[in-house]
Amino acid sequence: MVVLTARGLMPPVFTPLNDDHSINYSAIAGYAKYLADNGIKSVLVGGTTGENMSLAVSDRKKLVDEWVKVAKSTGLHVQVQVGGAPLADVLELASYCQKAGADSLLTLPELYFKPANVSELVYYIGLVASAAPKLPVLYYHIPSMSKVEINMPAFVTEATACIPNFKGLKFTSNDLSEGAQVLRALKKDQEMFLGADTLLAPAALLGIKSSIGTTFNLFPRLAQDILDAVENNDVAKARALQEKLSLAIEAHTVEGPWVPIMKAGMEIVSGIKVGPPSLPQREISAEAKQRIHAKLRGLGLAK
Amino acid sequence: MVVLTARGLMPPVFTPLNDDHSINYSAIAGYAKYLADNGIKSVLVGGTTGENMSLAVSDRKKLVDEWVKVAKSTGLHVQVQVGGAPLADVLELASYCQKAGADSLLTLPELYFKPANVSELVYYIGLVASAAPKLPVLYYHIPSMSKVEINMPAFVTEATACIPNFKGLKFTSNDLSEGAQVLRALKKDQEMFLGADTLLAPAALLGIKSSIGTTFNLFPRLAQDILDAVENNDVAKARALQEKLSLAIEAHTVEGPWVPIMKAGMEIVSGIKVGPPSLPQREISAEAKQRIHAKLRGLGLAK
Amino acid sequence: MVVLTARGLMPPVFTPLNDDHSINYSAIAGYAKYLADNGIKSVLVGGTTGENMSLAVSDRKKLVDEWVKVAKSTGLHVQVQVGGAPLADVLELASYCQKAGADSLLTLPELYFKPANVSELVYYIGLVASAAPKLPVLYYHIPSMSKVEINMPAFVTEATACIPNFKGLKFTSNDLSEGAQVLRALKKDQEMFLGADTLLAPAALLGIKSSIGTTFNLFPRLAQDILDAVENNDVAKARALQEKLSLAIEAHTVEGPWVPIMKAGMEIVSGIKVGPPSLPQREISAEAKQRIHAKLRGLGLAK
Amino acid sequence: MVVLTARGLMPPVFTPLNDDHSINYSAIAGYAKYLADNGIKSVLVGGTTGENMSLAVSDRKKLVDEWVKVAKSTGLHVQVQVGGAPLADVLELASYCQKAGADSLLTLPELYFKPANVSELVYYIGLVASAAPKLPVLYYHIPSMSKVEINMPAFVTEATACIPNFKGLKFTSNDLSEGAQVLRALKKDQEMFLGADTLLAPAALLGIKSSIGTTFNLFPRLAQDILDAVENNDVAKARALQEKLSLAIEAHTVEGPWVPIMKAGMEIVSGIKVGPPSLPQREISAEAKQRIHAKLRGLGLAK
Repeated sequence: MVVLTARGLMPPVFTPLNDDHSINYSAIAGYAKYLADNGIKSVLVGGTTGENMSLAVSDRKKLVDEWVKVAKSTGLHVQVQVGGAPLADVLELASYCQKAGADSLLTLPELYFKPANVSELVYYIGLVASAAPKLPVLYYHIPSMSKVEINMPAFVTEATACIPNFKGLKFTSNDLSEGAQVLRALKKDQEMFLGADTLLAPAALLGIKSSIGTTFNLFPRLAQDILDAVENNDVAKARALQEKLSLAIEAHTVEGPWVPIMKAGMEIVSGIKVGPPSLPQREISAEAKQRIHAKLRGLGLAK
Repeated sequence: MVVLTARGLMPPVFTPLNDDHSINYSAIAGYAKYLADNGIKSVLVGGTTGENMSLAVSDRKKLVDEWVKVAKSTGLHVQVQVGGAPLADVLELASYCQKAGADSLLTLPELYFKPANVSELVYYIGLVASAAPKLPVLYYHIPSMSKVEINMPAFVTEATACIPNFKGLKFTSNDLSEGAQVLRALKKDQEMFLGADTLLAPAALLGIKSSIGTTFNLFPRLAQDILDAVENNDVAKARALQEKLSLAIEAHTVEGPWVPIMKAGMEIVSGIKVGPPSLPQREISAEAKQRIHAKLRGLGLAK
Repeated sequence: MVVLTARGLMPPVFTPLNDDHSINYSAIAGYAKYLADNGIKSVLVGGTTGENMSLAVSDRKKLVDEWVKVAKSTGLHVQVQVGGAPLADVLELASYCQKAGADSLLTLPELYFKPANVSELVYYIGLVASAAPKLPVLYYHIPSMSKVEINMPAFVTEATACIPNFKGLKFTSNDLSEGAQVLRALKKDQEMFLGADTLLAPAALLGIKSSIGTTFNLFPRLAQDILDAVENNDVAKARALQEKLSLAIEAHTVEGPWVPIMKAGMEIVSGIKVGPPSLPQREISAEAKQRIHAKLRGLGLAK
Repeated sequence: MVVLTARGLMPPVFTPLNDDHSINYSAIAGYAKYLADNGIKSVLVGGTTGENMSLAVSDRKKLVDEWVKVAKSTGLHVQVQVGGAPLADVLELASYCQKAGADSLLTLPELYFKPANVSELVYYIGLVASAAPKLPVLYYHIPSMSKVEINMPAFVTEATACIPNFKGLKFTSNDLSEGAQVLRALKKDQEMFLGADTLLAPAALLGIKSSIGTTFNLFPRLAQDILDAVENNDVAKARALQEKLSLAIEAHTVEGPWVPIMKAGMEIVSGIKVGPPSLPQREISAEAKQRIHAKLRGLGLAK
């Protein structure tokens, strides 16, 4: 029986690049150690933050190998996102991940011949799940990027009925009302990971305690403190800490698209060299980085 | 100086209709008493729930008169929604409300020559606000119905700078992340009323404590209990009560469009005869009403 | 039996305003004479161009009266658009038009409680048609403004089956593929009026020969020449004339929203004082008017 | 200097599959001969019809090789669509096509990190064009699938200024008004290929004479006859032939998604075994194929 063990805060890792846009595999071990040292128990490799939708299959495989390798020493659960490519490549990646020792899979929907309804999406996820039948497989719901807008409670119910190793989803949406409905539709051995860093605290109040969020790379302790405050029934503290995290995010978002700003922030905050974004995305300016730095300093989140 | 005094839970009232679709003005006094007896301090007349976008101006004026009259004995704050009609009529209604003794105004954006940007929306709201310069005026943000999708934090900032009696907004959206941003953009004498009944508890955690929600007609005590639980730092209770309210809402939403299902639920729960919806909306079937009733009974919310 | 007699080019008339935004009824007789002198046989009163979605019902009635009156001497068919207001007002206007002697009706869909499917739209149009059972009634399809996007071939088929006086539609869309499908779905006594002035020639090739277009106010002869060229199998001429009209339109569209730019162009080209647009729309600048004028002169379409 | 020689009707070729979904390369020579025998001078390999957005890079390369090989004997111009994959793979494919002897390139926009404006789209197309600097490169505008909705006249102007080998676009849209604007923005050595088979005749009237359309695989002679009728100023004939083609298309579209229905139609009409669609798309039922067959027979387009 396939079991998903990951729970809690899961950072989607950046793909460290050298200045010439080649992948800097040597940075991964240190990056993993930094996360583990900060209390992180699992990572998502190959998500939006990792920009794997821009990478060749061969590079995506090497990234899986490298993260599985470092996971042995750091104890991190390695979830891999395999979608965002032609289906033939997605199936190849899913199969590869099972052999390579990944712990669980996440997959985007088809991006070109988009599913028109619940049933077509279930069919697609079923194909991916069949390529890695021993791994728990989750669906990556991110309509703002994928433009696939399928009703999630209905999807979850049908996918659970049809796909033995379907174990949940990443729910990247600010609609906590739909999120709470999804939560009610899931079985006990499934999990919903929220993808909305500005809503950690209110989501936790609703019982949504697992999340995949880029900013857990930058501020893993702050994110955990938010969850703890809710757990401890300290509403005022939860609000204040969430406000702090949200303002830190706003300091970034005024400066450009998500991955370029967050790669900039990661270097400012952690010192880990994640480098420029993958093409076709472009680095933000030095001035923009300075403005982010100044605001983070003002919030007490950077030196 | 114009001051907005309304805060907290504000039900948008139904327009009671007779079976022939004429307005049943005689039901309003009893309806107001029911709300006041259940702890309600303010009402919104003429919103989506009241279906005033389907009514003639003359009827809308009579509704204002009737609610202002009953407010004298019940102590209710009367906010009136004046939009959803040609601008000439909206201005006429705004002016009428000031004379008739309404306490505050809410207005939709232009529905046909829609604003293309923040500045055009501010211009429109400014025209309405000028027609009732002694009343606090709020903007009714409800993109799912109006199809006007303007960035609210930016709008609030510009409207505050340009319109002396602009005092806030109704924010009908499930995006609490944008809601929290709006809250940060507002001045102390302004207020944001959330329009998302399934998110009362998580919104309260973020500091959003005022709401306009149809279900406060049906379940005013339950809604207040949710706010109190958050205020009292009882997260588990807040979650459980919110879940109860959300399930009660879902019992309705599977049966049809918002106003027809809620009018049905209102009669089931309160016994107040609000009648059928205004044309072109249509009553739900007797079977649908029975299914709603059974589910509400199961939740302990109806007899 | 209800018969629709209008065919061919139908300008949607502007509502002439004085500088204080009051309606200039005295300009209508001369305006009608100008159109009739230029070969026009029918007009649409109260459409988007007439901005009746911004006017009070009482003003809309007076406009109907005035146009019906001038029609007696000019022989113009008077079609009236009655939608864009609360349903109660739309029904009142439809009923009024029948008594006042209008020749046919056009109506927008409900703008707030929008129809979710073909059947709900048919129900709404049926309500309006019942209020003026002796007049031919047409549906005003303009999804770019109304945000009501219902499949037109399916709607036409169901409306024809259910509504005795349903006689066609105005199809304001650049999708001539759907337009051709609608044409195939219509009965012989029904008509589709295209609303796409830049596509007169290609539409005529497909057999779409009736149109309602703002620019027929400005350039009635040019528009008719385009139709004639297609009728006479002169493809090169049709293309050249269409290009001329399209460039004249582009001269306007770079300067602002549709009605303000077209009211400006109308004064430049015809000398008829149509005045500023109705609030909340705003006049374009004098500089913008000069740029339009210069381009029209370059095209040989203004002095 | 890079020159684009292709003009006129260009079918986007299907990827012939065996029943086990492997690619049937051996069918390509016969397929190419069929097209050449029917007057076709150029083909698009790897477009939506070819479903290359579902294939592995290695298979896409073999398809290029095979089509380039058969082009030597049939004289077909081979245009290759290289987009619909992670950018790293798109660049690899573009570079490969130049070496392999393809005649021109077409590319989709980025499907995940979508361009937000003209400039970001130009940057992406510039990256692809740089990978094959000796080939003419065209942009594949198909917002219904890509969900990238950038203003094409503005894009064409900026791309022409920035990218030396940018030579036009495929314009897959039914909006001939925007299409005519694009045509006016193009230089003489560039070309716009329309992607709207139901609008061949009206587009030709506007001067749009090049097209890429799936149905040119099925009905190459009928499509050419439509263009000839317009060229010969025979409007009635152009309309009748276009109506015939449009009804043939409607016979398909009621039965399912585009590629599955067209693969079915291709086998019915031409006898060439193109097989099932690539996963995740699925074959239509035998009954659906019979209904299509019967309708095509009724139109005199199948035996």
